[in-house]
This record gives sequence, structure tokens and C-alpha cells, in this order.
Amino acid sequence: MTLSVVRRLPGPARLEAFSDGVLAIVITLLVLEIKVPHIDDPQSAQEALGGLVRLAPKLLGYVLSFLFIAVFWINHHRFFQLIARVDNGLLWLNMLLLLAMSFIPFPTAFVGEYPWNGLALALFGLVLMVAGLAFHLMWRRARSHGLLHADVDVDTVRQAIRRGMVGPALYAVAAIVAFVLPIGAWTLCVSIPIYYALPRHQSQSSPGTSGNHAPQGHL
Amino acid sequence: MTLSVVRRLPGPARLEAFSDGVLAIVITLLVLEIKVPHIDDPQSAQEALGGLVRLAPKLLGYVLSFLFIAVFWINHHRFFQLIARVDNGLLWLNMLLLLAMSFIPFPTAFVGEYPWNGLALALFGLVLMVAGLAFHLMWRRARSHGLLHADVDVDTVRQAIRRGMVGPALYAVAAIVAFVLPIGAWTLCVSIPIYYALPRHQSQSSPGTSGNHAPQGHL
Amino acid sequence: MTLSVVRRLPGPARLEAFSDGVLAIVITLLVLEIKVPHIDDPQSAQEALGGLVRLAPKLLGYVLSFLFIAVFWINHHRFFQLIARVDNGLLWLNMLLLLAMSFIPFPTAFVGEYPWNGLALALFGLVLMVAGLAFHLMWRRARSHGLLHADVDVDTVRQAIRRGMVGPALYAVAAIVAFVLPIGAWTLCVSIPIYYALPRHQSQSSPGTSGNHAPQGHL
Amino acid sequence: MTLSVVRRLPGPARLEAFSDGVLAIVITLLVLEIKVPHIDDPQSAQEALGGLVRLAPKLLGYVLSFLFIAVFWINHHRFFQLIARVDNGLLWLNMLLLLAMSFIPFPTAFVGEYPWNGLALALFGLVLMVAGLAFHLMWRRARSHGLLHADVDVDTVRQAIRRGMVGPALYAVAAIVAFVLPIGAWTLCVSIPIYYALPRHQSQSSPGTSGNHAPQGHL
Repeated sequence: MTLSVVRRLPGPARLEAFSDGVLAIVITLLVLEIKVPHIDDPQSAQEALGGLVRLAPKLLGYVLSFLFIAVFWINHHRFFQLIARVDNGLLWLNMLLLLAMSFIPFPTAFVGEYPWNGLALALFGLVLMVAGLAFHLMWRRARSHGLLHADVDVDTVRQAIRRGMVGPALYAVAAIVAFVLPIGAWTLCVSIPIYYALPRHQSQSSPGTSGNHAPQGHL
Repeated sequence: MTLSVVRRLPGPARLEAFSDGVLAIVITLLVLEIKVPHIDDPQSAQEALGGLVRLAPKLLGYVLSFLFIAVFWINHHRFFQLIARVDNGLLWLNMLLLLAMSFIPFPTAFVGEYPWNGLALALFGLVLMVAGLAFHLMWRRARSHGLLHADVDVDTVRQAIRRGMVGPALYAVAAIVAFVLPIGAWTLCVSIPIYYALPRHQSQSSPGTSGNHAPQGHL
Repeated sequence: MTLSVVRRLPGPARLEAFSDGVLAIVITLLVLEIKVPHIDDPQSAQEALGGLVRLAPKLLGYVLSFLFIAVFWINHHRFFQLIARVDNGLLWLNMLLLLAMSFIPFPTAFVGEYPWNGLALALFGLVLMVAGLAFHLMWRRARSHGLLHADVDVDTVRQAIRRGMVGPALYAVAAIVAFVLPIGAWTLCVSIPIYYALPRHQSQSSPGTSGNHAPQGHL
Repeated sequence: MTLSVVRRLPGPARLEAFSDGVLAIVITLLVLEIKVPHIDDPQSAQEALGGLVRLAPKLLGYVLSFLFIAVFWINHHRFFQLIARVDNGLLWLNMLLLLAMSFIPFPTAFVGEYPWNGLALALFGLVLMVAGLAFHLMWRRARSHGLLHADVDVDTVRQAIRRGMVGPALYAVAAIVAFVLPIGAWTLCVSIPIYYALPRHQSQSSPGTSGNHAPQGHL
């Protein structure tokens, strides 16, 4: 019996599908926070423009969170393509990851409303840090508990784990900087996902695979 | 003809996918209830902290409901991995389960707004109880109507059914206690999903399968 | 080339998955309409009860719409299990169906706010009628354009098409009755999905298939 | 190692599933923008009718956006059925597409609130233009980087790319016209998806495939 259950443990496929669902919803819910601006003269394009300009921080937060989740989705997939089996530890680390991801709309709205508030910005960075950390721990768990496919290269995993610490560390820095220099925290929060989204940052190691990249750690 | 239709009855796969969709959405919608706190001085980190502290019951309710749904998703999957075919009874019990699960955002918001209100807490416990009860009935239905895979161990099912009564019973207790001692109801509501989430509680029966556990009943 | 594209036309699988996604979201969004009632004394269970009682029409509308969508999902699946290929006509009829289904939260909220308003109730019935009609036309299209699997029984299809006209017709009656006798419209709207949800209504034709039913038309 | 990773790159299947999820959610979220109208006499059908009439622009925007997303979903699928592999460029163009699609609820709400505001209408057209452009670039990328299945006809792709420029160009025109002649922009925005939704517009090239059409470019 135990064996038959082990065979049927939630595989990466279902966990990925569930995570996909959560990420697809989070990425789509973000827009609900952007409310139509009030305009006195319904036909005034100028007033409408003023309304959009006032929404700028929210729009920037929206694009930023979208970018963050998109990069995350890509790396999440790349990770699970290397995973052969899922144990309870990985399952719950993934749940922690989803908890952080599904929480994103709140700090996004908070920072969109008060873009120069230190605590709001710090919370934004903190949530992204927790997400990155959970993902980093997933990589570690996968390596230490033999959850990876047999043919996965050890160096790739080591690289991914090393790179995976950069994101959370930078978000932690952003969370601290937020209280002193909000513009610095914004710059960091904008730069990190863009850095991870750029396909270039790995080309030195495998120049021949233009377009097809090995796992890039995570954002 | 009848035969060909029987062959094509909604299998566990589609029902699981639909349930996954609903659970992924519920788990993500919960955050919408947490509104950005109003702050007079947009740059005051202290005011923002005060706003977050006032949101504490909502944040706790969010994490709690997330945990509840996560545990539920895991056990729901483990259950369906043992299911060979779905009949009308199981289909509708699963719909009752989804009705309770998709209703969770309301009592979560209610209890987040009025954390010490007996009725709000009782409603929270009641909805979790209905969800647990529906799941318990699904186990019973699966056993009594021969819906399980042929190789599923009888003892495992008996254990799962027995354990599956603990959750609903405790939630019922929480719903009653809520009127007398709200803090007691909170403690119960926090403890039950944590208890079910802990991987340890079954290790005595199968010490060799560290990390891979048999179905754990449900929360 | 044309042939290879024909081979790759959107099959039932993807259309079903997309429809599943939409239905899972609609069924879950309904709860967002139920707002936490305001209470003056945060700890008064009696006030909370009063708030819940005032929410009764919304709660009933919620359960009703949930039931409607659940019945619909079941019949939608049973239909697509008989479908071998999807043409443009079926694709767009399914889109009309999804348009009606995804619109349901609005009339549900309307009728929940003004339960005795003739127009709100009529709109509720009308939307359900359009959904039922679209589904009925899907059955007709499938039969007339040879989209069904070769082994699907002609009588089953005829029965399903005949039964499929009952729902829309009754909803049309409910929409008219709504202006004269709101309670009559409510009774109809409550009865129709319950009638379709009951597994019994077909047992006379195939008494031996307890639990496993042939397609039941739609609601 | 590099090879094994290349084999496991996110294939069209997962990307399609994720895109499906996002589109299913966007198409369903649109209804949340339509709020129940306030009525003084709860039982007055006439007042309710007045409320619905005032909602007319929102309802039209809802149907329009639904139609746009439905057409898009269909063409998105047809495209991916021709795709053999996904590279980083296609991945990120698809993300740009999803960014535009998931943003749709905002301009839909904006235009629904201020239907004759030039800027709101221009924004609506602009977002649809970006979506169309992203999809157009996906076609180009697929052709230039050899991502299509080997048996896909060159003429079909050329036609699709040529046709795929019409939509964005017309939306750009609509965005400009919006400032001068709002009714003209509305007419364009209504006509374009209807034009793409009509199955006829290609019958001249393959008269024998009634119901089954080759990829129709996009809207």
C-alpha cells in the first residue's frame, strides 16, 4: 500500500498547475487596484491626462509587479522541469512561495498609494525577499533531498543556488534603504527583475545557445 | 450507447482540475479583502506601521485561510490520487466542498473586521466544518460505492476516515466556544490546520517513508 | 498545409480547459459581492446575526448561482465528452455561453440588492435563459454538423436536445412572471437548477445505471 | 547538461496554459466593473431600467472587451498550434501580450465611465494596439527564428503576418480619431473585433474548408 501511495504522491505536474493558476490570478488581479480617476468634465482629455499622471505610481507598481511575477513564473517552470519528485518539504516551501506571491497585490497597492512611504516600500521589498528566499530554499531542498532528475548537472544547480541568493539579498537591502532613501529602494526594485529578465547575463558560460538558456536561478 | 457514456463520465482528472482552479482562485482572492490603510502624512513610516498593526487580525485571517486552503488542496489531491471513478454522489459532495471553500473569503473578511465577535468567529468555524464534513463524506462515499483504486489499502482508508472526523468535530467545538471564549476559538482555528500541516503526525505508522506520507485524512 | 491546420484546429480539450477556467472563476467571484455587514458594537453577536439576516437575499443568490454554474459545468463536460471536433460555429456558441456565464455575477448582485425588483429578477432569468439557449444551440450544432463521436446514440442526443429546451423556456417564463409575481420567479429560479441537479429524473429510461447517468440535457 | 535543459525549455503547452489562465481571468474580471445601480424605490422596475440604461456604455464596453479577448484567445491558440518550440524572445513577447491583455479591465472601466472622453478612448485603442502589435511580433519572431512546425506553409505565415498588421494599424487610427471624433473611434473599436470574428473573410482562398479555417492572423 505504502508503495502505491508513494507512486501517486502529488507530482511536479499538479503542483506546477496549481502554482500556475495562482500566479495567473495574481498577475491579473493587480489591475483591479487601478481605479478610474474622477474627472469633473467628462469630455476633457486634459483632465483625463491629469488623472493618469496621478496614477503613475500605481501604473509603475503594476508593471513592476507584473514583471516580477512573469520572471518568477519563468524560473519556477525551469526549476520544476528539473524536478523528478516532490516531497513534503518542497511542497510546503512552494506553498510559502505562493503565500508571498499571492500577497503581492497588497504591498503593490500600498506602494502605489504612498510611493514615498518608507514602510510601504520596505514591505514591498520584504515580500519579494520572502518569495525569493522561499524559491532559494526550494533549490537547496531539491539538491539536498535528491529531488532533481538524475541527469541534472551539478554545476548548474550550484550556479542557480548561488545566483538565487542575490535577489533576496538585494531585496533586503532595498527594504532597509527604503527608510533612508526611497528613490534608492525604487531603483533597486525596478532593477532587480529587469536584471533577471535580461537573457544576456549568462551568455559567457554557453555562447552557442542563443535564445535557449539554462536555468537562470531566480529573480 | 449507455456504455460509451459511462466510459466518458467526468473522471477524477477533470474534477480535480476544476477544483484546483477554484482553490487557486479562492487562495488568491483572500488578499483583496486587505485594503491599503489610510495615512494622513504620506511619508510617515510610523503612521504606516500603525495602519499595518490595525490590519493585524485581517493579516492573521489571511494567513490562516491560506494555510487552511493549502492543507486542503494537498489532502484533496491525495484523495483523488486514490480514486478510480467518480459517481454523481461524489461529484455533488465535491461541489458542496467547493461551495464551502469558495465561501471562505466572506467569513475571513467578517472575522478580520470583527475579530472578537462570537457570531463572526462561529461562522468562520462553521464554514471550515462544512468543508471538512463534505470531505469526510467523500471518503465514506468512495469506500461504500467502490470508487477507490483496487490496490488501495483498507486500513489506510479506515484511518483516513477516522482522522477525517477530528477536523470537523474540532471546528464545531470552535464554533460553539466562539460565543463564550473568542480567544479559545481563535486558538483552535489556528491549531487545527497547523496540526494537519505538520508532516510528523503519522510517522509512527510508517517510519521508513520520511518525507513521503500516506494520505493524512484531511484538516 | 490546409490539412495540417485542420488537424490542429482547437480541439474540445483546450476549449473545455478554457471554459473550465472561466466557470471556476465565475463560481468563485460570486462571493466578492457579499460584503461584511457593518456592526456598531464589534462584539455583539446579535447585531452580527441581524447583519447576516439582512444579507439573506445575497446569500441565497450566491448559493443559487453557484448551483446553477455547478450544474452547468457538469452538463458542459458531459456534452464535450461526446464531441469529436469543434468547428467555428460551436466555438462561437460556446463563447456566447461563456459571455452569459461570466455575466452572472452582475444580475446575482442586482437581485441580491433588490430581491423584489421585477426588472432585476427578469434580468437574472434572462441571463440564465441565454446561457441555456446557447447550450441548446451547441447541441443542435453538434448534431447537424456531425461534430459528435461516431458511437454516440441518436436517441440520447434527441432526448438531450428536447430536454435542453425546457430550461431556457422556464427561465423565459420566470423573466416574465418576475414583473407580476416576484415570488413566483424566485420559486422557478430556485427549482430549475435543483430539478436538473437531481440525479433521479432519468432513472426511468435506464434503471440499471445507478449513479452513472447519461447526459442530462442541461439546466 | 545544456542539451538536457534545452529539451526541457518551457514548451508551447505550458505557455499556452498560463496564457489561457490569464485570458480566462481577464475575461471574467471585466464584469466586476459593472456595479449594481442605486435605486430609490427597491421595487420600481422603471428605476431599475433607468439604472441599466445609464450602465449602457459599461455594458457595451464589457461585451466589446469580451469579444476582443475571445477573438484573441482563438487566434492565440491557432498560432501556438503551429509553434514547435519557444525561445526567450517569443516568451517575452507573449508576456508583453499578457501585460496588455491583463491591463484591459482598466481602459474598459475608464471608457465605460467616460465614453466620450478622447483620452480614455485613445487609451482603450492604444492597449488593444499594443496587444495586437505584440502578437504580430510573435508571428515575425516565430518565422525569423524557425520556431514553427516544419510542415507549416510559408504562404499561410506570410498572409497571417500581413493581416496581423491591419488590427494594430486600425487601433492606432482609432486612438488618434478618438480625440477628434469619439463616435468614429467607437465605431472602429466595435468593427475591428467583429471583422476578425467573422469566419467569412478568408473563404475566397480556401472555399472547400467551410467551418474549418486556417489561422486568421489576429484581431
